[in-house]
Amino acid sequence: MLAKHLSLGFLSSLRFSSSAESRVLKPGDILRKTRIFSDVDVIEYSKVSNDSNPLHFDPEYARNAGFQDRLVHGMLVASLFPRIISSHFPGAIYVSQSLHFKLPVYVGEETSGEVKVINLRENKKKYLVKFSTRCFKNGDLIVLDGEAMAFLPTLSIE
Amino acid sequence: MLAKHLSLGFLSSLRFSSSAESRVLKPGDILRKTRIFSDVDVIEYSKVSNDSNPLHFDPEYARNAGFQDRLVHGMLVASLFPRIISSHFPGAIYVSQSLHFKLPVYVGEETSGEVKVINLRENKKKYLVKFSTRCFKNGDLIVLDGEAMAFLPTLSIE
Repeated sequence: MLAKHLSLGFLSSLRFSSSAESRVLKPGDILRKTRIFSDVDVIEYSKVSNDSNPLHFDPEYARNAGFQDRLVHGMLVASLFPRIISSHFPGAIYVSQSLHFKLPVYVGEETSGEVKVINLRENKKKYLVKFSTRCFKNGDLIVLDGEAMAFLPTLSIE
Repeated sequence: MLAKHLSLGFLSSLRFSSSAESRVLKPGDILRKTRIFSDVDVIEYSKVSNDSNPLHFDPEYARNAGFQDRLVHGMLVASLFPRIISSHFPGAIYVSQSLHFKLPVYVGEETSGEVKVINLRENKKKYLVKFSTRCFKNGDLIVLDGEAMAFLPTLSIE
């Protein structure tokens, strides 16, 4: 099947490989969201998580640690995955998530999160879906990968 | 070795199993942080993550899905782990995190995050440390478990 990608606007682009007439999730389907994390995002995430690692605030500290600049919190980047899933499947319940941080994400870099259906099965009137989960920057550089499992209340994509 | 737990205040309690005279991280050491996630925390996390799953906002929706009330975002609960690690080791660099969500966390519930050193080794003048990572509520109910790997700039506990 040729993937048909629909884009719903810059920075909030959302693509899925289902055909327009059949928006039911199936193995191989990809859902994606692109975001640029800002200074404000890093500050607000630090406040709510109480995580004040200087790598996120002090450019000099970050450079001394071998980075080009301050880092976006890895767990903030990872928040793209449940956001993507729950935006298409409100009521989704997260079961698990693995995260392998491969490259830093810097403030201002365009970052794309992508979840791809590996398999799915019905369980107690819900659907247990296993996704591969990856984030990219500069197009195809993998910054974060792993897998997620979630119960979805339906397979109909919103 | 008998673990010696030091508590540094309610809600910001911090315990470690090193003796007071030897604050160098070693296998078996436990670092812990307790937090009660509030309505404001859930709202602020939703804003910064753009995650608006109704399970976090609509008590009726959450009850219809089988929960007692609105849920705290799992990834917000998980943020306890890098917070604990970076608060003791500023400059810590996250390598990986696995997360298995076992039980819901509701707004207002006291939740304790705990990271325990499984092993550690020196690598390029940094220390690669593997932690078991767990969150509890009501004392000993496991709500979240997994493992994390992080590079620490030092083994001296702040």
